[in-house]
Amino acid sequence: MDNQKRGVLLFSGGLDSTTTLYHAIQNGYILDLITFSYSQKHLIEIEKAKLFSNLLNIKNHLVYNLDPSIFINSALTSNLQVPKNRKNILEEKNIPVTYVPARNLIFLSIATAYAESHSIENIFIGINNIDYSGYPDCRPNFINSCEKTINLATGKNNIQIHSPLLNMTKIEIIQYALKLNVPFEHTWSCYDPLIKNNILKPCQECDSCLIRIDAFNKAGLIDPSYK
Amino acid sequence: MDNQKRGVLLFSGGLDSTTTLYHAIQNGYILDLITFSYSQKHLIEIEKAKLFSNLLNIKNHLVYNLDPSIFINSALTSNLQVPKNRKNILEEKNIPVTYVPARNLIFLSIATAYAESHSIENIFIGINNIDYSGYPDCRPNFINSCEKTINLATGKNNIQIHSPLLNMTKIEIIQYALKLNVPFEHTWSCYDPLIKNNILKPCQECDSCLIRIDAFNKAGLIDPSYK
Repeated sequence: MDNQKRGVLLFSGGLDSTTTLYHAIQNGYILDLITFSYSQKHLIEIEKAKLFSNLLNIKNHLVYNLDPSIFINSALTSNLQVPKNRKNILEEKNIPVTYVPARNLIFLSIATAYAESHSIENIFIGINNIDYSGYPDCRPNFINSCEKTINLATGKNNIQIHSPLLNMTKIEIIQYALKLNVPFEHTWSCYDPLIKNNILKPCQECDSCLIRIDAFNKAGLIDPSYK
Repeated sequence: MDNQKRGVLLFSGGLDSTTTLYHAIQNGYILDLITFSYSQKHLIEIEKAKLFSNLLNIKNHLVYNLDPSIFINSALTSNLQVPKNRKNILEEKNIPVTYVPARNLIFLSIATAYAESHSIENIFIGINNIDYSGYPDCRPNFINSCEKTINLATGKNNIQIHSPLLNMTKIEIIQYALKLNVPFEHTWSCYDPLIKNNILKPCQECDSCLIRIDAFNKAGLIDPSYK
């Protein structure tokens, strides 16, 4: 197998990482997936992620358990409440309480160990720097610096971080996902799901839901997850 | 408490990280410790590390369990044999099989999350770039790049990585440790301990033992761990 066309994707089962998954496959990559379990309130995303690896016959899908004791004060992993119905999320300058300290750095570091262990040279991550919640570890200068650090850590100078959605708006991501035939109904974005009739449903009020709902509206599309 | 004088140390209970521990305390830092458990063959180092936090009344000592499934092909975590009685270890150009993929990057990433969660701005690591086994993640350019990446990941620009032993020879480290009153007998360096009379003993043949034995010999000191 040509190692150049193998990759490992940080895969949450969300809209962005699923679009990145379909993008990489479309571009000829054979992907391994890593999904992290870190006591996040939306653990349901792991089940959604597994659904995709079954659907696409992905051979290697690692669900990696990460001890969450290092994450304090994040609303995604603690008793702190996930903010609801925030206004002007995209204009907010402060880092929101849903930020998980150094999460993407840890995820990328673990992907690096995985990549090096499996002779993989391409790491995919579905981050986005435009319509996002203002997390510092979603910015291009972090990704560039991290790629340099990863290559110095491994001494191989052959690992590339691919973040194809980095500079797309959320509407552009949805339009691209549509083109790639991403089944929106299986993707999961909500940080703080509700139980309705014994089924977990997106809250429709957290930042992640609001950004998604707004983008689908602006794209003139119906989001099957939010029917 | 002045946050400037708090730190978190990556602490294995080995000679280098223990010397770094005593160095930081000597320099007025109040330290938290993180020791990693990743199915390494020398899990005994965790017990040695705990001994130091008891001895020094360290309040916060996290033993962090890291799923080792991402580390393949390392002699420290797999069935691969730890090399014994290698010659010219310090002149060797190839990365030895005891290298654990991206280990220091992962350790520093997790220390970053811990530091950010606890409003700590100083991360200490006892790496050494002179008398070492040739691991790429012990080189100064990795540490410099990692510090930059960490600050971009957290968006705070206030985290400093301290590696006070980076440019010391192993003999200099031992002499410095002696000055700091490091109790050598409690430190553990061996990668592949043996059981002798129901007690774990250093093998005296792995790279880590050989580098340590050679340095103590050259420093004209008796190493109480290798009596």
